[in-house]
Amino acid sequence: MNIYDVSKKAGVSIATVSRVLNGNNNVSEKTKARVLEVIDELGYTPNVFARGLGLNTMKTIGIMCTDCSDPYLANAVYYLEQDLKRHEYDSILCCTGNNIDNKKNYLELLLSKRVDGIILIGSKFLDADFSENNAFIIDAAKNIPIMLVNSYLEGNNIYSAQCDDEAAVYTVTDALIKSGRKNIVYLYTSMSQSGRNKLSGYEKALEMNRIPHRKEFVQMCNKDIQRAKEYLNTLHENGYKFDAVVTSDDSLAVGALKYANEHGFKVPEELSVVGYNDSILAQATEPELTSIDSKVQSLCITTVNTLMGVFNGSDVPTRTYITADIIKRNTTNF
Amino acid sequence: MNIYDVSKKAGVSIATVSRVLNGNNNVSEKTKARVLEVIDELGYTPNVFARGLGLNTMKTIGIMCTDCSDPYLANAVYYLEQDLKRHEYDSILCCTGNNIDNKKNYLELLLSKRVDGIILIGSKFLDADFSENNAFIIDAAKNIPIMLVNSYLEGNNIYSAQCDDEAAVYTVTDALIKSGRKNIVYLYTSMSQSGRNKLSGYEKALEMNRIPHRKEFVQMCNKDIQRAKEYLNTLHENGYKFDAVVTSDDSLAVGALKYANEHGFKVPEELSVVGYNDSILAQATEPELTSIDSKVQSLCITTVNTLMGVFNGSDVPTRTYITADIIKRNTTNF
Repeated sequence: MNIYDVSKKAGVSIATVSRVLNGNNNVSEKTKARVLEVIDELGYTPNVFARGLGLNTMKTIGIMCTDCSDPYLANAVYYLEQDLKRHEYDSILCCTGNNIDNKKNYLELLLSKRVDGIILIGSKFLDADFSENNAFIIDAAKNIPIMLVNSYLEGNNIYSAQCDDEAAVYTVTDALIKSGRKNIVYLYTSMSQSGRNKLSGYEKALEMNRIPHRKEFVQMCNKDIQRAKEYLNTLHENGYKFDAVVTSDDSLAVGALKYANEHGFKVPEELSVVGYNDSILAQATEPELTSIDSKVQSLCITTVNTLMGVFNGSDVPTRTYITADIIKRNTTNF
Repeated sequence: MNIYDVSKKAGVSIATVSRVLNGNNNVSEKTKARVLEVIDELGYTPNVFARGLGLNTMKTIGIMCTDCSDPYLANAVYYLEQDLKRHEYDSILCCTGNNIDNKKNYLELLLSKRVDGIILIGSKFLDADFSENNAFIIDAAKNIPIMLVNSYLEGNNIYSAQCDDEAAVYTVTDALIKSGRKNIVYLYTSMSQSGRNKLSGYEKALEMNRIPHRKEFVQMCNKDIQRAKEYLNTLHENGYKFDAVVTSDDSLAVGALKYANEHGFKVPEELSVVGYNDSILAQATEPELTSIDSKVQSLCITTVNTLMGVFNGSDVPTRTYITADIIKRNTTNF
């Protein structure tokens, strides 16, 4: 029996129980009474909590990511961990992969380890097609705050910080069109929630500029440099003309540069290329890549600030948007 | 009171207590008697252990890495996690940074979470200068098995799997010399244990080929592409001639390619370049990098196999070496 059981039995969040125990006034009298009643029923006193079982003594946050070998996710882990430590919280990380049962099991594991909050990195934890696959997150949020880094899910005690991916892809696609490009290929890594937002930015920019949408110009390539290069080769061999490639990840932009290099096309004059995430790849190529800085550090700092606000019982935003930066280098001339 | 207390009081490892409880015969009669005596003293029975507190019910491994944003370390986390899951073990990860107190605190945290074993990734957990800074690892190994991925520390219940970094750098440096290069620069990221082994491979190859060692040709550059490029520029401006660059990380090899590109030097004819770790960077550049595959996946699989062997009470090697592969691409002609 512990603070989690009190939270469950009283039907309130851990943070609320903590607020009651800490004398924070941001709790209604009715809720406060209910919590104290449950504590009494379970035979506990606030002092026992505070000493051995309470929120303030755990100081550990669970972090979940689907794939630590992904540079974007790995950077997020790094920034979260640093910022949590600055607030004197330890963190434990679970790399879940994409299997839904593994995701559920790891979330259960973190709950059983008595973490104070859980941060889910990236939008691959959410099933955009089958909302019943997100129920385990909504359930977990009944116990402790759930923080989403670059994804969104409606629900109590769930907080989200997102990069405005749609606006970012819209902006670069529109800038390419305004600078004279008409045949823009879009290569992407996945149809996650954030993947859909990026594609939508591309489609809206075409639509606003009355450029017809061609399905051959949109292609999934995972994060595979070779696959991106080969798809562009296939388009070329089949007589398609294109003058720009927008991507959802720097790796695919590297593939586009390799395609241009093989055919002797000048970048950016004959082919403009835009990456995404502004990873180390963007600075490794020649010419260096124009890329979208998706602000992972800001998302992480915002997430940790919000979480600390939840623990303190402050009013915190449930949804935060951060605008991406366009880092102009030498693969575009807009 | 739990299995850890039994292990401490009996002066044996957790694995040994587990063997006794599981009826494994790989335990001396004397040790077995001592463990059972302690269990009796502490008022426990094997059944109580097995149900709620014992090794076989935890099924969780702690993983520690100094920096999740490092691609090598992040890949190791990924492979370890996958392989542990295949053996039905969960993993929890702590990113410690390089501060010794944080390393100690995280190790304590993992012990307090009752993990069954701890894996330390990379040689930045070991202090090559002050062995007293490694005592916390030796202490932890009194409780549970400690697995080192690409580092080595002498001690009971500590197991190590290493890439033979010295041999790898020796082999490429020697091949460069045999193919006619005489002025070989070595750029490195750090003087960790594995960093020292790599440097030693470079020095031995020069020595074996009776090429004098020049201190200007060896430089620390962190993992900084620009810094590598600028150091080579400085050498060039000061009139030093060099025809090859060997590095301890692909990022520094990318810097060497940028240097060659700026000066119009042909690669590999006028400047040969060798990377390390065979990361995504090696395939992103033009020409693509010859690089050393440091076999991180094999190291991780070996580590997990050894750990499972420890749990089963099998005879396992305390130290394993794996030979690196030289991946020849277009920045060398040996």
